[in-house]
Amino acid sequence: MIIVLRPDATKSQIEHVIKRVKKLGLKPMVSSGIERTIIGVIGHEDVVRVQPFEAFPGVEKVMPILKPYKLVSRDFKKEDSVIDIGGGVKVGGKKVIVMAGPCSVESQDVLLKAARAVKRSGAQVLRGGAFKPRTSPYSFQGLGEEGLKMLAKARKETGLLIVTEVMDTKDIKLVERYADIMQIGARNMQNFNLLKAVGQSKKPVLLKRGMSSTIKELLMSAEYILSEGNFNVMLCERGIRTFEDYTRFTLDVNAVGVIKNLSHLPVVVDPSHATGKWGLVPTAAKAAVAAGCDALLIEVHPNPEEALSDGNQSLLPERFDELMKDIKKIAEAVGREI
Amino acid sequence: MIIVLRPDATKSQIEHVIKRVKKLGLKPMVSSGIERTIIGVIGHEDVVRVQPFEAFPGVEKVMPILKPYKLVSRDFKKEDSVIDIGGGVKVGGKKVIVMAGPCSVESQDVLLKAARAVKRSGAQVLRGGAFKPRTSPYSFQGLGEEGLKMLAKARKETGLLIVTEVMDTKDIKLVERYADIMQIGARNMQNFNLLKAVGQSKKPVLLKRGMSSTIKELLMSAEYILSEGNFNVMLCERGIRTFEDYTRFTLDVNAVGVIKNLSHLPVVVDPSHATGKWGLVPTAAKAAVAAGCDALLIEVHPNPEEALSDGNQSLLPERFDELMKDIKKIAEAVGREI
Amino acid sequence: MIIVLRPDATKSQIEHVIKRVKKLGLKPMVSSGIERTIIGVIGHEDVVRVQPFEAFPGVEKVMPILKPYKLVSRDFKKEDSVIDIGGGVKVGGKKVIVMAGPCSVESQDVLLKAARAVKRSGAQVLRGGAFKPRTSPYSFQGLGEEGLKMLAKARKETGLLIVTEVMDTKDIKLVERYADIMQIGARNMQNFNLLKAVGQSKKPVLLKRGMSSTIKELLMSAEYILSEGNFNVMLCERGIRTFEDYTRFTLDVNAVGVIKNLSHLPVVVDPSHATGKWGLVPTAAKAAVAAGCDALLIEVHPNPEEALSDGNQSLLPERFDELMKDIKKIAEAVGREI
Amino acid sequence: MIIVLRPDATKSQIEHVIKRVKKLGLKPMVSSGIERTIIGVIGHEDVVRVQPFEAFPGVEKVMPILKPYKLVSRDFKKEDSVIDIGGGVKVGGKKVIVMAGPCSVESQDVLLKAARAVKRSGAQVLRGGAFKPRTSPYSFQGLGEEGLKMLAKARKETGLLIVTEVMDTKDIKLVERYADIMQIGARNMQNFNLLKAVGQSKKPVLLKRGMSSTIKELLMSAEYILSEGNFNVMLCERGIRTFEDYTRFTLDVNAVGVIKNLSHLPVVVDPSHATGKWGLVPTAAKAAVAAGCDALLIEVHPNPEEALSDGNQSLLPERFDELMKDIKKIAEAVGREI
Repeated sequence: MIIVLRPDATKSQIEHVIKRVKKLGLKPMVSSGIERTIIGVIGHEDVVRVQPFEAFPGVEKVMPILKPYKLVSRDFKKEDSVIDIGGGVKVGGKKVIVMAGPCSVESQDVLLKAARAVKRSGAQVLRGGAFKPRTSPYSFQGLGEEGLKMLAKARKETGLLIVTEVMDTKDIKLVERYADIMQIGARNMQNFNLLKAVGQSKKPVLLKRGMSSTIKELLMSAEYILSEGNFNVMLCERGIRTFEDYTRFTLDVNAVGVIKNLSHLPVVVDPSHATGKWGLVPTAAKAAVAAGCDALLIEVHPNPEEALSDGNQSLLPERFDELMKDIKKIAEAVGREI
Repeated sequence: MIIVLRPDATKSQIEHVIKRVKKLGLKPMVSSGIERTIIGVIGHEDVVRVQPFEAFPGVEKVMPILKPYKLVSRDFKKEDSVIDIGGGVKVGGKKVIVMAGPCSVESQDVLLKAARAVKRSGAQVLRGGAFKPRTSPYSFQGLGEEGLKMLAKARKETGLLIVTEVMDTKDIKLVERYADIMQIGARNMQNFNLLKAVGQSKKPVLLKRGMSSTIKELLMSAEYILSEGNFNVMLCERGIRTFEDYTRFTLDVNAVGVIKNLSHLPVVVDPSHATGKWGLVPTAAKAAVAAGCDALLIEVHPNPEEALSDGNQSLLPERFDELMKDIKKIAEAVGREI
Repeated sequence: MIIVLRPDATKSQIEHVIKRVKKLGLKPMVSSGIERTIIGVIGHEDVVRVQPFEAFPGVEKVMPILKPYKLVSRDFKKEDSVIDIGGGVKVGGKKVIVMAGPCSVESQDVLLKAARAVKRSGAQVLRGGAFKPRTSPYSFQGLGEEGLKMLAKARKETGLLIVTEVMDTKDIKLVERYADIMQIGARNMQNFNLLKAVGQSKKPVLLKRGMSSTIKELLMSAEYILSEGNFNVMLCERGIRTFEDYTRFTLDVNAVGVIKNLSHLPVVVDPSHATGKWGLVPTAAKAAVAAGCDALLIEVHPNPEEALSDGNQSLLPERFDELMKDIKKIAEAVGREI
Repeated sequence: MIIVLRPDATKSQIEHVIKRVKKLGLKPMVSSGIERTIIGVIGHEDVVRVQPFEAFPGVEKVMPILKPYKLVSRDFKKEDSVIDIGGGVKVGGKKVIVMAGPCSVESQDVLLKAARAVKRSGAQVLRGGAFKPRTSPYSFQGLGEEGLKMLAKARKETGLLIVTEVMDTKDIKLVERYADIMQIGARNMQNFNLLKAVGQSKKPVLLKRGMSSTIKELLMSAEYILSEGNFNVMLCERGIRTFEDYTRFTLDVNAVGVIKNLSHLPVVVDPSHATGKWGLVPTAAKAAVAAGCDALLIEVHPNPEEALSDGNQSLLPERFDELMKDIKKIAEAVGREI
């Protein structure tokens, strides 16, 4: 950590800072430049990070040097993490995994239609929400356990694995029983109690980036899960909120490369939310695979016109089938397979 | 709702849309312009809002006309809501209420010092977190019930009311027992289960705007609480996330006027989080009062250098005291009092 | 255009709006819904767009239906525009064109080294700035005409075409004489005089998106150029400014697909500025090609450590060479070639 | 400047960096922490700033310590700059100056009406654009010199000073002849040639913040003007672009305090553009005065319904008159006058 003093900092203000640094058991390195003094702090940055040095008189700013996360860091683990989600399916290896299905579980019939279709086109995982975070209290809120049972039935019939969202600590035991992957939604990325709770589970977790969370914050939220003992975490870029309003969100495709640099955890991309329009989903999915993502999460609905949520961004099964063929070629072009 | 067709929409596509509108029990008004056809939909927009008309072939875009919220709307209730938070203190009336205190409850001693100081300077409510949402799992996470008890003791001694955060549905009963106002933090603004749960309480709720939530989304989240029966809701602007990085967040001072136009609920401003630097808190607080806010939420700490959270943005008691004098004059200049 | 009245709009206010619409020679379609009246306006939207109807008493909001641009629109020209930039090189056809070279022209020697290298790896166009928009007045500002001459010499030796920036109306004649493509930088995207001036030239123009401009605004700026008679315009996505600060900008890869839907003009992507870090450039470039861009604009420097600008984001020639091989495979996977 | 090495940086990479620092005539201070080595660079940061150290092998990141601007800095000049704009009017002193008038100069008649009205209510400066930067090439582009003459006539009649925009280096001599303050618009904040050109003038300059420019970038643009010799610069906060779409822009009221801390230059606020809706202008103006701005720039039109630009955000003269009374009280509450 570097503490930058103000040009007009007094000697006693500087000494006060130095004293405090020493009191924390750390070593201050004072350097007097032409315009101002700076103090480098050597030692465990965690101890020093929580100190509000910017509140000290004479201090202009404080600049952290080290990363605030550990277990998720590439420094902690050099090689890529490969997560076994069951049934021999692994996320983070050579194969790019496709998770597809309707936004919400609406009925057994629609779900099965979707499941059969995505299975036929080559998906390995079925997505579908039983608990739905909806902006409006008057919108469809999901079928709850009923929906989870429908997912289980679809898994039984098709052999697809299940990814589904958990929204509340009180539902974890329930969701855990049915799901192969528990999803933490973008709106709950900083619901820290929920993160701790899934961290105490053994189930793989798909953690979605908050719509205005930095990559660093995403990694910090993953750190909550790993620090409780669950290392089976996948990070999902699903579009961030920007001033551009033609699309629902802006796909931060840079994030794929950045996360790969900073962390060993696999990266999933959701091109459906990242665009909000089905016509743009294929383009975004292709870009994501080319950028090196380990999995895709795509909304597919047998009849988007009747979908109870996110119909605008759902692909028809036939369009999804075409997309699978397209991304297969791109996966091969980047040395992967689908 | 207006449905805009693409210039190349076929007749049968247009008829398909019209048929669906009628099937929903609504009245379509077709208007053929020079370049394209548009269909106005007359009737309850809720019914139509959930239909994914953008997924229909031939449809270019869909534009809602009506507001998606009702109970929080100024259309629903013309006059300002005034919320009685106990002890004769009312938010939303002529008096601008000041809520102040440390970010976290750290110890009985520090809390009492802060409480006495803010009371002396004219605050009516003591703030202090017992459950703390922290970006890092390695940071101080709050004292839990222990902290709530310290708050209760401070209330007993000083007569100040208590506002404190609740982060999880499982803690609501507990927090309700101690708090005069339950705070929903910015990171939980779209934790819909939590919103429903505080909606079933009778306790006043202070709902903070998510750091990248639009004003409309803030109102929709408040609608969750009101729709469960709890109308005692205060909306808090606490800074939004923008590209500007000199300050921690950007205070959206426009939001005060906008919310007052759109809703009858009182508006609180938090200048501490909205700036992230104690040196800028007074400026932001003055602007907020001039803009017409009903209450302020300010971090004050007897010794910011020792604060376990947010020390950088906490005011010393003597600076808070000056600020109170300054905003008193501004309150009077806009026809209010402090 | 749709004019939405307030619920409390009086009859005379509504009539006042209707009268004004008629006065403009347009046809108002009045529709009285359950909650409020709306007025659809049929006729040329340009006439009505400039009317400040939101300033009329009783009006709540105004929603445009039609697009504000014409000549750049896909509605105006169905098929893709293919722009002949000289020497048989075409942007917008099957071949993805690569424009590469140093950020600034620094010396004849460095420029020639870069030119030979990018030529060898398969680029068709040499980039290099002679006029440089620099944030600081104390940074290297470019060599001016001297630099243009060096570019001409590099073209002569290598056969590469030249793309270089023009920053001021007074320099257009000069730049036109040397360049094959005139670049309008992101900071000048709304320098309307400059747009008009290059619109009066015949030279192809590469128009960069402003760092916080919407796609609609980018199209409107292109409309300025086309409306003056120059249809040889390429649109360049180069990253937008968001809250994410790990990268210099956020590559809006969605924009490629969106522009292709809305406009017939070719799309160029600049992965160097869109990331700001050379280690991330390959990922972004691959994503851009997979998304369907028509050309790439990449910074390559024989010795980035010595570069006078943007050294951090410049590729070494050998890394650029690898990248060319990688994107060749992706181009083929999406039915293009490089 | 601090250079942070990667944990896996080799000894020879570290030495390579050190050698380069020394070659620049600067002094490296090497400090080996637990996790990585950092190198502090002592000496003139300008020299080092242009070196792309992030491109060096083994370097993780580079953190500047000093501010990149000088002449505009509070470190350069402690006391507030007070700018004499003529006729005894001074910006930056005790009196808060009000600049008001129509967005564009449309006709002599309308302009005079506006001028008389704002004069009567207490404004000192008349605003009005003769050269207009418009998003659409089909919108009214301003009257050019004709408009400037109308402004001069209004000045003659009313005694108001004139602020008007200059958009192109070629128009500076012309605008200079008529204006008392030359305005650089938000879209030209980084039109560096224009900045240099007004820097060579003696006329006061009102520099508007770009809609997505950081405060630091605003100060760097001002530095361009001062470094050419013109110290009569006022900085104008006019709203920044964020995700919030209810208002046209988000007024960054924090910026007033931040600029006052970092710079000695006066701060102007434009509540009209910062909100985009006349109904919100008074709130924003009051907040700005409370926050300590030195001047306001407000759009007033005798008949907004007929305005050729920005009618939606223009105040009627009678509303402006009320606003003047309101902000007078607030100015007094913060120890200023109007």
